[in-house]
Amino acid sequence: MTMKSISYKNIASPKGFQATGIHCGLKHKKKDLALLVSDVPASVAGVFTTNAIKAAPLLITKDVVYETGKMQAIIVNAGNANACTGKQGMADAYMMQKLTAEKLGIDQSLIGVASTGVIGELMKMEPVTTGIQALEPVNELEGAIDFSLAIMTTDTVTKNTTYQTIIDGKEVIIAGTAKGSGMIEPNMATMLGFITTDANIESNHLQDALKAITDVTFNAITVDGDTSTNDMVIVMANGMAQNNSLTPNHPDWENFVQTLHTVSQDLAKMIAKDGEGATKLIEVEVKGAITDIEARNIAKTVVGSPLVKTAIFGNDANWGRIIAAVGYSGATIDPNAITILLGTTKVVENGEPVPFSEDDLIIYLKQPEVKIFVDIHQGNGQGTAWGCDLTYDYVQINATYRS
Amino acid sequence: MTMKSISYKNIASPKGFQATGIHCGLKHKKKDLALLVSDVPASVAGVFTTNAIKAAPLLITKDVVYETGKMQAIIVNAGNANACTGKQGMADAYMMQKLTAEKLGIDQSLIGVASTGVIGELMKMEPVTTGIQALEPVNELEGAIDFSLAIMTTDTVTKNTTYQTIIDGKEVIIAGTAKGSGMIEPNMATMLGFITTDANIESNHLQDALKAITDVTFNAITVDGDTSTNDMVIVMANGMAQNNSLTPNHPDWENFVQTLHTVSQDLAKMIAKDGEGATKLIEVEVKGAITDIEARNIAKTVVGSPLVKTAIFGNDANWGRIIAAVGYSGATIDPNAITILLGTTKVVENGEPVPFSEDDLIIYLKQPEVKIFVDIHQGNGQGTAWGCDLTYDYVQINATYRS
Repeated sequence: MTMKSISYKNIASPKGFQATGIHCGLKHKKKDLALLVSDVPASVAGVFTTNAIKAAPLLITKDVVYETGKMQAIIVNAGNANACTGKQGMADAYMMQKLTAEKLGIDQSLIGVASTGVIGELMKMEPVTTGIQALEPVNELEGAIDFSLAIMTTDTVTKNTTYQTIIDGKEVIIAGTAKGSGMIEPNMATMLGFITTDANIESNHLQDALKAITDVTFNAITVDGDTSTNDMVIVMANGMAQNNSLTPNHPDWENFVQTLHTVSQDLAKMIAKDGEGATKLIEVEVKGAITDIEARNIAKTVVGSPLVKTAIFGNDANWGRIIAAVGYSGATIDPNAITILLGTTKVVENGEPVPFSEDDLIIYLKQPEVKIFVDIHQGNGQGTAWGCDLTYDYVQINATYRS
Repeated sequence: MTMKSISYKNIASPKGFQATGIHCGLKHKKKDLALLVSDVPASVAGVFTTNAIKAAPLLITKDVVYETGKMQAIIVNAGNANACTGKQGMADAYMMQKLTAEKLGIDQSLIGVASTGVIGELMKMEPVTTGIQALEPVNELEGAIDFSLAIMTTDTVTKNTTYQTIIDGKEVIIAGTAKGSGMIEPNMATMLGFITTDANIESNHLQDALKAITDVTFNAITVDGDTSTNDMVIVMANGMAQNNSLTPNHPDWENFVQTLHTVSQDLAKMIAKDGEGATKLIEVEVKGAITDIEARNIAKTVVGSPLVKTAIFGNDANWGRIIAAVGYSGATIDPNAITILLGTTKVVENGEPVPFSEDDLIIYLKQPEVKIFVDIHQGNGQGTAWGCDLTYDYVQINATYRS
């Protein structure tokens, strides 16, 4: 396949996209209002939180994705989640959609809304209203960076990735940006992901591709096991690359899917690595499960274990906690047929300890990316999950979040 | 019913029980080997970890409970879990059982074995062998306290409780001790519980009572969501109170069950309160669920949420995290029919914020026991779960556990 990384990673890089982000006043000083616009209505796909409590803006955006099937712009704020805010919250989210439509001269049904921040407080609509008027999206790297900044909450870095592929001989770009640091858990958590592409593809095919990819990327990360009320990943495909419309029968379908997969996986790993207070990215790869789903569940269980997370933070090769997590994952296992490696060092074979150099492993565990490999020798299922270590800073950030 | 708390809380207080605990050399200095003995073979009931990886001593004790149906003594060590230790681990656990049998002149099939500590290291059998010879159990408070001390790992306090009730006009005592601080999660985690009683009851009825009680006590606590390889709760009933054998038809059956329930709940709450690094006990009571099981699941989800736990640590009335946890618990809910109280202060009604005094709540949240009350108004199911806050010390303890 043909796919290459683009150095100017930004969601305005596919043809016909503009972005911006400003400070309107929901946060003290930082940027908190962002806008992404396509020159033309784009095919849209979306995946949304599984939390039974859903924020108002999420309900509106879900309608745009599933009812309208096209999206041309999305307005995003950080600092207030507009969740558990009742009728007023719905009215406020609709107002954000309406004001954005008026500002851009676009039909309201084509506008998505996303929010992230504190739950249960009514939106301050005055700064939002003024802010929407002031937004000036541009087709430039700077606008995309501003967008990435304005969607952050406790994130410490912006998260952007961009790839190019060739479809029907046309250059197609897929770019993504995301926010997410706390309340991160499989199945969407305070995580917002926005992916833009100039590929030509109908919404239904885009939705199928996104759904399958999400399961093994965004839904394979965990920071703290808390699933948020506001999460969503949105893909907008505006067709301006002018390739023949992509379907699973298109000869370049795999090119497209693989590129979208890579964009999604990049963003997912960036979110896990930037988990609240994290010092390390942890990758857990599981082989030998009965099914891929079981393998992924084991991987998520291990990477989500607070005891594994604190051990990795402490550079402690305490594999007993890893095998214990495998044991309570609910997967079909044989306790005497488990192999575990930390990096390339085997620490468990046939469910029993293998001698290893603690000193060498401490050096390995001090790296910014730690890989745990588990083979349970029951079948051909495999899966990977990503997370981060659990640190003093996680506690500090979350004990004082509203202070 | 007739039930009163006994001031000398100790597992040697029911008639015919002796206990002791010593330092044998598995830990650096602290007591690490404990023995509990009944003068006569006792009816026994037990519940065990649901982790698919089970420690060697647990497998042996399970056999005593389910095959022999009687237990007369249990030997316990702390400092090494004897888990993931293969054939040698099984041989070592059997050797502990055999040595204890020889020491006491009791049939080996009547001896239970329990271990807690680091996973994946072979037992140092020399100190254990010498230690077993040195054990001198006594029917005194001091022996019971030594037992409680010798089973601890990262626990900061011993956990003992004792109640008296009247059955057939006879005084019956039920006493319990437990250890558990980290790797604590519903369905048994590095938690050991030992309950003694002089009640006369057959093993099958004792097992039924224990199982039902465990679900709403030991299995309703969580510290970190990690389920251990070694957990067990054992009840030994030696019949020396000489009541008529207890069955569900016995007029004092409820007396007995309620007393056993109270002993179990006391121990469970003590474990939650002594969770690694904890500064507070958190109790979550849920009403209005479709079933009791759903109510308990919601309660456990809320009390297990790292974001709720850190907020409580930070004295932050961040109820948004509570309602978000209710939302992802998987229970049937109506987002607009949720009531939440912190202590006696209502913070959410009909799923929306209720104005409250942050200052008053900060004072409440600084108490050593914090209660969260959730009513989801869907049915009559209710349940309670207990946990603790998530603190810097939890991270510190677990980042350096083996160091």
